[in-house]
Amino acid sequence: MSERVVLAYSGGLDTSVAIPFIAEQTGAEVIAVAVDVGQDGEDLEVIRKRALACGAAEAVVVDAREEFAAEFCVPALQANALYMDRYPLLSSLSRPLIVKHLVAAAKRYGGTAVSHGCTGKGNDQVRFEAGLYALHPELKVIAPARDFAWTRDKAIAYAEEKGLPIDVSSKSPYSIDQNLWGRAVETGFLEDIWNGPIEDVYSYTSDPAVPREADEVVITFKGGVPVALDGRALTPYQLITELNQRAGAQGVGRIDMVEDRLVGIKSREVYEAPAAIALITAHMELENVTVERDLARFKRGVDQRWSELVYDGLWFSPLKYALDAFIADAQKHVSGDIRLTLHGGRAVVTGRRSDASLYDYDLATYDTGDTFDQSLAKGFVDLFTLPSKMAAIRDRRTQG
Amino acid sequence: MSERVVLAYSGGLDTSVAIPFIAEQTGAEVIAVAVDVGQDGEDLEVIRKRALACGAAEAVVVDAREEFAAEFCVPALQANALYMDRYPLLSSLSRPLIVKHLVAAAKRYGGTAVSHGCTGKGNDQVRFEAGLYALHPELKVIAPARDFAWTRDKAIAYAEEKGLPIDVSSKSPYSIDQNLWGRAVETGFLEDIWNGPIEDVYSYTSDPAVPREADEVVITFKGGVPVALDGRALTPYQLITELNQRAGAQGVGRIDMVEDRLVGIKSREVYEAPAAIALITAHMELENVTVERDLARFKRGVDQRWSELVYDGLWFSPLKYALDAFIADAQKHVSGDIRLTLHGGRAVVTGRRSDASLYDYDLATYDTGDTFDQSLAKGFVDLFTLPSKMAAIRDRRTQG
Amino acid sequence: MSERVVLAYSGGLDTSVAIPFIAEQTGAEVIAVAVDVGQDGEDLEVIRKRALACGAAEAVVVDAREEFAAEFCVPALQANALYMDRYPLLSSLSRPLIVKHLVAAAKRYGGTAVSHGCTGKGNDQVRFEAGLYALHPELKVIAPARDFAWTRDKAIAYAEEKGLPIDVSSKSPYSIDQNLWGRAVETGFLEDIWNGPIEDVYSYTSDPAVPREADEVVITFKGGVPVALDGRALTPYQLITELNQRAGAQGVGRIDMVEDRLVGIKSREVYEAPAAIALITAHMELENVTVERDLARFKRGVDQRWSELVYDGLWFSPLKYALDAFIADAQKHVSGDIRLTLHGGRAVVTGRRSDASLYDYDLATYDTGDTFDQSLAKGFVDLFTLPSKMAAIRDRRTQG
Amino acid sequence: MSERVVLAYSGGLDTSVAIPFIAEQTGAEVIAVAVDVGQDGEDLEVIRKRALACGAAEAVVVDAREEFAAEFCVPALQANALYMDRYPLLSSLSRPLIVKHLVAAAKRYGGTAVSHGCTGKGNDQVRFEAGLYALHPELKVIAPARDFAWTRDKAIAYAEEKGLPIDVSSKSPYSIDQNLWGRAVETGFLEDIWNGPIEDVYSYTSDPAVPREADEVVITFKGGVPVALDGRALTPYQLITELNQRAGAQGVGRIDMVEDRLVGIKSREVYEAPAAIALITAHMELENVTVERDLARFKRGVDQRWSELVYDGLWFSPLKYALDAFIADAQKHVSGDIRLTLHGGRAVVTGRRSDASLYDYDLATYDTGDTFDQSLAKGFVDLFTLPSKMAAIRDRRTQG
Repeated sequence: MSERVVLAYSGGLDTSVAIPFIAEQTGAEVIAVAVDVGQDGEDLEVIRKRALACGAAEAVVVDAREEFAAEFCVPALQANALYMDRYPLLSSLSRPLIVKHLVAAAKRYGGTAVSHGCTGKGNDQVRFEAGLYALHPELKVIAPARDFAWTRDKAIAYAEEKGLPIDVSSKSPYSIDQNLWGRAVETGFLEDIWNGPIEDVYSYTSDPAVPREADEVVITFKGGVPVALDGRALTPYQLITELNQRAGAQGVGRIDMVEDRLVGIKSREVYEAPAAIALITAHMELENVTVERDLARFKRGVDQRWSELVYDGLWFSPLKYALDAFIADAQKHVSGDIRLTLHGGRAVVTGRRSDASLYDYDLATYDTGDTFDQSLAKGFVDLFTLPSKMAAIRDRRTQG
Repeated sequence: MSERVVLAYSGGLDTSVAIPFIAEQTGAEVIAVAVDVGQDGEDLEVIRKRALACGAAEAVVVDAREEFAAEFCVPALQANALYMDRYPLLSSLSRPLIVKHLVAAAKRYGGTAVSHGCTGKGNDQVRFEAGLYALHPELKVIAPARDFAWTRDKAIAYAEEKGLPIDVSSKSPYSIDQNLWGRAVETGFLEDIWNGPIEDVYSYTSDPAVPREADEVVITFKGGVPVALDGRALTPYQLITELNQRAGAQGVGRIDMVEDRLVGIKSREVYEAPAAIALITAHMELENVTVERDLARFKRGVDQRWSELVYDGLWFSPLKYALDAFIADAQKHVSGDIRLTLHGGRAVVTGRRSDASLYDYDLATYDTGDTFDQSLAKGFVDLFTLPSKMAAIRDRRTQG
Repeated sequence: MSERVVLAYSGGLDTSVAIPFIAEQTGAEVIAVAVDVGQDGEDLEVIRKRALACGAAEAVVVDAREEFAAEFCVPALQANALYMDRYPLLSSLSRPLIVKHLVAAAKRYGGTAVSHGCTGKGNDQVRFEAGLYALHPELKVIAPARDFAWTRDKAIAYAEEKGLPIDVSSKSPYSIDQNLWGRAVETGFLEDIWNGPIEDVYSYTSDPAVPREADEVVITFKGGVPVALDGRALTPYQLITELNQRAGAQGVGRIDMVEDRLVGIKSREVYEAPAAIALITAHMELENVTVERDLARFKRGVDQRWSELVYDGLWFSPLKYALDAFIADAQKHVSGDIRLTLHGGRAVVTGRRSDASLYDYDLATYDTGDTFDQSLAKGFVDLFTLPSKMAAIRDRRTQG
Repeated sequence: MSERVVLAYSGGLDTSVAIPFIAEQTGAEVIAVAVDVGQDGEDLEVIRKRALACGAAEAVVVDAREEFAAEFCVPALQANALYMDRYPLLSSLSRPLIVKHLVAAAKRYGGTAVSHGCTGKGNDQVRFEAGLYALHPELKVIAPARDFAWTRDKAIAYAEEKGLPIDVSSKSPYSIDQNLWGRAVETGFLEDIWNGPIEDVYSYTSDPAVPREADEVVITFKGGVPVALDGRALTPYQLITELNQRAGAQGVGRIDMVEDRLVGIKSREVYEAPAAIALITAHMELENVTVERDLARFKRGVDQRWSELVYDGLWFSPLKYALDAFIADAQKHVSGDIRLTLHGGRAVVTGRRSDASLYDYDLATYDTGDTFDQSLAKGFVDLFTLPSKMAAIRDRRTQG
């Protein structure tokens, strides 16, 4: 039997061309694997047939939408994952999931190598390869776009030469990656970082500047997992999907930033992630209500490191697993309702209630019923400030 | 000569009543000190005369607005200071400045004690006393509201009994602290954290939901200091003042959160900080463009710790000073222009340009002219992921 | 039935006197609870009878040595817990265990208050009270030494007046706390921090300067738990006990430091902890061999925070629990043997072997058989250093 | 004029061979630069002549010992720099210094490329190249050992073929790098990590197991810089040199560890660093006495990150500079005397005194004269523990 290469297949030009190219270069059979992570594009069956038409020996399509929501988006939510305080890690989350299914296909179909279409200057190559090394270190990796220096023009010429069934006429000016958790857009004119994005760039979100009625939603969390919208129990996939629509209709979740790539360069990125931003906003406030102060302060650093690791492709790595354990413990009491107003591009918390609340009205109120014993304060203040007071006395002594 | 107590005087009921009360309790003369930190209320001369009318031996008013902007708000901006990722530290910034002027007055007028009106369950008592201990550890502290358990009703009765010239009729339902950097509001109905704020709560900001024309502003930074708006050179005080008006008119900077107080309780707080939020948004993005990745990643932790320390009252403390040194070094290249759209409650960056930019178009572009050497990527990816790959191989080996 | 107060009883002067004093002050019955944490002093039954002779209504003694080793010392070992990089948290570990047994006694005997003998300037008051609040927040706390300002002289006079069966003649010049994990000594002449300790201070360790034969020991760990010495399977308690003797005989584990107390002062402390230091030394090196780099780097910060929290009395706290979860995950592969030479006050690792090792001879060797692909290095170095290179280019450009 | 390559020249086989080899490969003239960082080997003039005899166009020797001590070792001391809590960064410190002098030579002699002899699996290649990119990004880098896959056998054959004046007969079994701050040894039999080092491995230190008289030394620091030994003012270079002898004679500073290399592998390393370990021990204790608690706690994380950065070759990087600013500020008061006993492989602090001490006898003592107000403690304890107490109450409430 000839060698078999498992290809991460999107249905687009680059990975379609890769099918005959890899076969040609390596003499191997190509197994095309397409994974539905909620990217909402072509029918998976159409994609499957295209892979076969391009010469794939096998073509597999996987509906991983519930898995993506539950096992990748929800952990990111629990980590309030915003790389550089802004980017909710869209592509960073789907890559390790796709890798899982590539490895499964390699095991099922006897693949000995895996191929992806990533270039050498982006982050996704690392996410693919780190995942592959972690899940199945014996697999070889083939990255034609990077290692054979493919360009779009070369791909089109090759497709035409081979007569591949791909429509190459309608070149989009945008380079897009999208999934359930959001959508990333890169394009030439945005590479000038003084240029602002135009409305045409966006697809998941309506223009927040257009006047419309506000929407209000109550999100219920249980142990850090969103489980209901307005009282209706939903799976994570259903909940994120509905929230993408409702928050997107209000223009929530647009992001425009300069970002530090793992490969050492800065790049301009535009994202839209309506559900992600609404959910993270709600989850952070529910943590404010239910998580003890010292834990909350330390968790910010854990959340940041988790986001950096996942951005850097290290989803399947020892530090990521240990941070997961920390976060899981910290989510035990993150249960309750958050009421959000969605409007004008903003997701604003207006109410929170929780059986696990650490907010104590009787201690907090300045009205009648106050149970806080103010006589404790003087001792607290005096000892809390004692080290800096002694340093101040020392400073004055040594300076004079 | 009798002892002299320097009182942090606001002109309001509590601190007006404190003047005769302290005199009575201690036999000391009271020196009232009112500091203008941009709180935009009564005329300072009116306040000064009221202090004297209430029995103060001396009454001092200090216009500290430029000092507050340059030496307290700007450092907070450079630290992107948002306590719990949300609260821009309004009162936390003014307290140490007020303390400086209380200590100056104590030295000038021979004060041996200082008095503030803070209660025992808030943060401000710590900010006052930590500052006093650091700047002048010999001063005694008198905190009547905390140590003598004053309430509003007791204060009114005392004012009437003494015939103090204070209007006690118009009780506001809100407890407010405001300055140039923003405005904090607490009130009874917000102590139920399921209740949302009503429009009446706000003063610095217009309702973001009302349709209006967007505003656009270009902020120029030099070494992390905002120095111009739309090309007009301004002092920090002037710039913040103008931006409060323009961003406030667009509803920017409203914050509603449950917050961890230093004294160990959670409290509900509503803030509005239009200029602070717009400036921090701009400054963070300019850092994205001009600050190297490793420094940026570490600085997030420094910024968080700085914010916690200042929130906790430790402005004048050894760790704060050392973090200041770190931040100052990190700001050297944070120079350039940020274009913001202010609209509908949002301050959105749409452009950035800087002579100190680390964004390199030629490395970042996917168009012609790309100078990034993709052949370097394979070696990078393979060695970067080597530790997690080896751990994965080990895990599989040890699991059987 | 009268109220009952559960007293943490050591058998010594202060807590013996506390029995009749508390009864007198509160009208309550006193339940004395003594816990054996390996402190190696008087027979527990003698202590129990003394409590009754002093007037206790009930006297309970608990042998908690195995529990202390397994549930308190081992977690500290897994966190490489050294407060300020030096102090292995001896008393900090026993206090939460004692609290558990006080609470259990309160439940069993109907106690409504708990009493401890700590002063107001040490750390132990916090450890007791934080633990009590966490495990049984309804219990009242009585701290006679702190709240009634007891001194040794007052205690002796009271004991004589009441005719308590306590020998007050042989006053030790040292204030000592000791348990299985080590021994802490404070004394007057060491309060001058220029004075060095004298040999008389030590009890667990022999003078390391005396020439003797070296000892060698192989410690086997499984999942971060020490399970065998020289191949003999032992419980944690047995293992620590034997190692205290063998390492102590070689003078290992003496510590002399100035330390930051939680109450805000610096104090001079002398400790000896032979087994603790030998085990932490071995465990750290086994982590060097078995823990992946990124996890190891982050764990140092976790270990430090864990040590600070436990030192600060927060054993039973949300952040401590979440850090425990992180550490437990990180210990999964910390299995293998460490060979230590114990000699002259030093515990020195001379060998390590592990089935879970991440050290790969074939990658590491410079001899024949090297499998490391050096051609990967150039790409790695170039991209790893790209951000600082670009910053250097920028710096030179902006400087002129 | 032909191109010129500046070569980091050690005088040994590899870099001697590199002179004619680089000339041959590139047609360039070779400028050999040897830097004295206290490595204590051959006479620099001998080395200079050997370079010329091997065909160098120019040969430069630089006595950088005082510079190395003052500008590289002292900052490492101020950061208590111990990579992985053990390794005092010997080679990591000399590489950036050597780079500075290579760049200076390139400027002086018109060099357009720089060459080093590092392999592709070590850390030093990164330290050289990161430094070169930072100081002179236009320079090309030539790394023959890595990029042309040189081995010792190839080098010997080449030397014999070219008749180079190098003695290749006496092959040491050890691979050694040494400088003022210490000495690193790698060798074949230590690549089996179960093998212990033998006495023959060491050169800077005597066998600590041999009985001898203890030595005692008082080190005086001023602002974190060691300025005197036993009261004699010395330059950092003089002081480190003397301390290497005295601490080395007592066997202080041997280190044997498994270490995480930047290139992703673990390696076994043996070091000896008598002065470094003695000085870091003393400096840490002086910080315990003079640095305020919060600053000390945060500085541990800064010290760790500083050590990782420098280990990773990023001496000249933005984050390193900002950490330097933090550390410099934290050293302001680190002044005073530390008395150390050097004996049996241990450097033990026995006394500390400082005008800038934060240790306050009157607050710390349990004897007469105690000024600590214990009545403050109850309020402190109650509010300090309030968050974890409330969490405990919540946990019990939500658990049923």
